[in-house]
Formats: sequence, structure tokens, C-alpha cells
Amino acid sequence: MELTFLGTGAGRPSRLRNVTSMALRLPAPSPSVWLFDAGEGTQHKLLDTPIKLNRIDRIFISHLHGDHVFGLPGLLSTRAYDGGTDAVTIYGPPGLQKMIETLFELSGTHIVYDIHYVETVEGVLFDDGHFRVEAAALEHRVPCFGYRIIECDRAGRLDVEKLQAAEVPAGPLYGRLKAGQDVELPDGRTVCAKDVRGPSIRGRIVTILGDTKPCEGAVKLAQDADLLVHEATFGGGLEEKAEAYGHSTTLQAAETAKRAGAHKLVMTHFSSRYELADANRLADEARTIFPASDAASDGDVFAIPCRS
Amino acid sequence: MELTFLGTGAGRPSRLRNVTSMALRLPAPSPSVWLFDAGEGTQHKLLDTPIKLNRIDRIFISHLHGDHVFGLPGLLSTRAYDGGTDAVTIYGPPGLQKMIETLFELSGTHIVYDIHYVETVEGVLFDDGHFRVEAAALEHRVPCFGYRIIECDRAGRLDVEKLQAAEVPAGPLYGRLKAGQDVELPDGRTVCAKDVRGPSIRGRIVTILGDTKPCEGAVKLAQDADLLVHEATFGGGLEEKAEAYGHSTTLQAAETAKRAGAHKLVMTHFSSRYELADANRLADEARTIFPASDAASDGDVFAIPCRS
Repeated sequence: MELTFLGTGAGRPSRLRNVTSMALRLPAPSPSVWLFDAGEGTQHKLLDTPIKLNRIDRIFISHLHGDHVFGLPGLLSTRAYDGGTDAVTIYGPPGLQKMIETLFELSGTHIVYDIHYVETVEGVLFDDGHFRVEAAALEHRVPCFGYRIIECDRAGRLDVEKLQAAEVPAGPLYGRLKAGQDVELPDGRTVCAKDVRGPSIRGRIVTILGDTKPCEGAVKLAQDADLLVHEATFGGGLEEKAEAYGHSTTLQAAETAKRAGAHKLVMTHFSSRYELADANRLADEARTIFPASDAASDGDVFAIPCRS
Repeated sequence: MELTFLGTGAGRPSRLRNVTSMALRLPAPSPSVWLFDAGEGTQHKLLDTPIKLNRIDRIFISHLHGDHVFGLPGLLSTRAYDGGTDAVTIYGPPGLQKMIETLFELSGTHIVYDIHYVETVEGVLFDDGHFRVEAAALEHRVPCFGYRIIECDRAGRLDVEKLQAAEVPAGPLYGRLKAGQDVELPDGRTVCAKDVRGPSIRGRIVTILGDTKPCEGAVKLAQDADLLVHEATFGGGLEEKAEAYGHSTTLQAAETAKRAGAHKLVMTHFSSRYELADANRLADEARTIFPASDAASDGDVFAIPCRS
């Protein structure tokens, strides 16, 4: 499970940072990639990664400002070229479907796969037994959401040595034990799952927020997250400016990570006033409040390890 | 007067070519830049040129396919950041205004300058005494136009030595002579403009076509052009494929240049099947029919010299 930052800038592209987008690769063996926001040029940035457009099957849009969504029509259109025939589901605030469909209609764009639009609402958006995605409203100048991706706990590993010693025949019985079922062997013995299965593996939590002022929705979504992605449009000291535009500073992002008990903070969505060389300073500002802070650059890939 | 190719690819961006856009810098001392088409990522490509967004005051869109227009909303939005407060006029087929306004409304994009939309029709679109722009319909899968930019002939140079020898006082009289008026001097002599002014300087003609099959509209627009920009989505031999998709091959672009009596052909809008290394071969194909042919690459700048 890893998160690739395709664009880490705010408002407008610069030579250093593209506008916002992130791609979350689900853990192997799943080939799925989920995209979070799609500013203009997201499909261009994907060309520099191993991620194929046709692997993207869910797209989560935080809000409809151009720097988060103007890359979506082109990306969907190119996805068809890239062999994408499977459906894609797009989550976002009201108006997203109309935006894309108007553009496609007027531009004569024919998409060969199905697009399912889901209007983002607070609460559970999606749950397939492997992942659950929850949304909550943030505080920005327009309706804006954050997403909390919760990997379901997985069954612990089977103690194969123990099973072999007990002469349990490999095959379907292993699967049932792994799934937590006790099984009866052909010779009449019963093997209890709890005796041959290690502790369950705790699922990871990744929280990806859209643009926001510090708010309770952000803290709620980031609770105990393994990785929190929080905007930091401005450096510390510019809290007044951040408030005026519905954004956060590095210090406010760090404060939210701390309050939520997150394990790692990665900041993104930096104003184009900041040079790449400022990234260390911006990260250092956040670390004064929340030590496990980083400032993302375009192309950065963050692995999200299982917690031991 | 020079033309910068911002994107020279068809349909989708590749690592080698962005989708279509060109910027025409008008001759000094005019600071104006006119943009022709704006595929996604056009504003990113402009960052690698000396052209500032706020210098762009006219935008000509050939047709509404995404690879020619999906970069327009972001570019207009960023133009405001870039200090653009002067109005911009956008020419394009019906539906363009609705496309951009729907996107701006839904994304809450506020543009601080005026945008004037002009629906492109055949004939003279614009004439300010320095430049005239004419449009004609091409043959593509959707309504599509080409543009012919005609620089008006300029007054010939004044023969300053002759004027000084005749003791004509410098100042307003020079201006009137330059403008072609005969003037009476304070001592009663008359100076005729034709005696002190060189031959008028012939204006240049640049023809920029959108996507098209070979057609009469293309030939008409390219008549005697100093520079003809023609799409060549496919290499020679793929005429059947080109016909099916409403496109042209290198050979067909060259044939149009030849029929129109153009002086130079630059081909663009190459299918992503072609590598950069194919560019020479594609140009060579066209040269078998029209020797003054080139294949554009992203970032290429073509100066359009005055014809002697």
C-alpha cells in the first residue's frame, strides 16, 4: 500500500509543483489504484510513474476547485485509450457529474466504459469487506470533503509447521481455518482455528483531506491514522491569510495530526510562493508540534507499512 | 512574428508530445500573444517559454475535442494569478462558451478580467487595421475551423536622408508623410509622400488549421501563406485510417500546401504511435511533395520573416 504524490501545489501549476493529485496503490495482489483529486496535468504526471490509467477504478474528489478537478476530463478520456474498459466510480461533491457530463457532451467525448458517479456524503461511502471509505465535511470556501480509507483487519497467518505436525492435509481445510472456522479432520479430530492462526493483522488507516481550515471533521477523519495527508498552503505565521482563504498553515496541519493521534503527517498543497528549497523549512515548522511530519514533493512515494 | 509549438501530439499526451496548442507572438512592439487551441497542460508548457499568460489577449479554438480545449479553463484561471486584468477574446465553435461557463460556475472560479466569446463563422472574424483574421470550415468529425492571420501591409520606410537634404523639419510632418499624405512646408514647398517613402512592406500570412481531412477550406485558407500549420496525424500510407477519423496524413498535408501555393509547411498533431525519432521520416515524406516541409516538436519556435 503506497501513496504517490502526483501534484503538491496549490491553485496554479509551477515549474516545481503541479496542482493537486495523489494515487493510492492498494496492497498486492490487488491491481487497483485509487486517485484522490485530479488537477490539470494529472494524466501527464502519471506518465512518470508505473501506474497505468486503466488500473484506476475509484476516484475521490475533495471539492470542485479547478486545481483539484480540471484534470479529470482528460484523464477519463485518455483512460479509454489506455485499454480501460472496466467501470470507474467517481465520488465527489454535488455538481461533479454535471461538470464532467457537460464537458463530454460538448466536446463529443465518448467514453467506452461505465462511469458511476456517487455524491459524497458524510459517513461510510464504500465498504467491500477489504476496505471501507468514510467521508466527512471540511471547512473551505466551497463544499469540501476529506476521505478516511480503512483497511479491514486481516486474518492472522496460519502456523503451517503446527498444521503439518498435526498432519492436517493442506488444501481447502487450510482456507477454512484461515477464515476462522474450526474444522473436523477425516480421522475425527477437530482443529480449532484459534490454535493454529496468529493474531489478526491490523488494517491500515490512510486519511486524505481536501483543502480546509483547521476543523473537527479533519480531526475525526485523522483519528489514529497511519498516514494523514493534510494541506499546508502556507507556512507558520500566515494563519490569518490561511483563515481568509479557507486554508491551513504547516503549524495547523501539525496540530490536527497531534490532536488526532495520527502516526505520520505528510503535508501537500503548498502555495506557489514556496520554492522547493523551502520544503525542509516547512517540514521543520510542523515538526516543532508533530515530529513525524514530512513535506511532499511531486513524485514522492510514501509506503504505508503495517503497524507491528 | 513567431509561432511557438506548445503541444504537437494528437488525442492524448505522451512523454514526448503534449496535446495541441500554439502561441503566435505578434511583431514588436506589440506585446500581444495569440493562442491557437489549448489542450490540457498548455499552461504548463507555457512555463517553459518566455510567454506570460497575461500577454495572451486572443484565443482561437479550432474545435471542441478535448485534446484541443481541455487546457483552456485552467489557463484562463491561472491568467488572473499572472497579473492578467485585460480582457481576453475567445473565438471558437458553438458550445465553447457554455463549456467554459459551466465549468467556472460549478468550480466556483471567479475570473477578474472580462472574457468575450465570439462564435467562429466563416469569413472575416477580426480586423484592427494591423491584422485581419479569417476563418473557414474544415472537414472533421465535429465542427472545426481553420484560421488565416493576415498582417496588413505596412507603410514603406521614409528616406530620412532625402528629407534632411530637403530640409524638411523632423516631427509631425514625418508622421504624415509616413502615413502617405503629401505635406506643405512652412516655406511653401510641397513634399509628396511617394517621393520620400519606400515601397510598402508586404504583410505576412500565417494559416493555422484545426483537425481536418483534405478539403477546399484548407486550401483556401492556406493560399499563398508564408507559413501553413497543418495536422498530420498519420504517416503516408494510412490515408484510409485518416479518412475514417477525419484526419490527414503527411502526404495529404503536403498536397494541400502545394495546391495552396504556401511558402512553408509545418506539420503537427502527430499520433502517439510515432516516436520523436520518426519526426525526420514524417517530414521527409511530406518533402517528396512539398520540399519546404517540417515536422514540429514541442517547444519548437518558427520565426515568420517578412518576404523580401
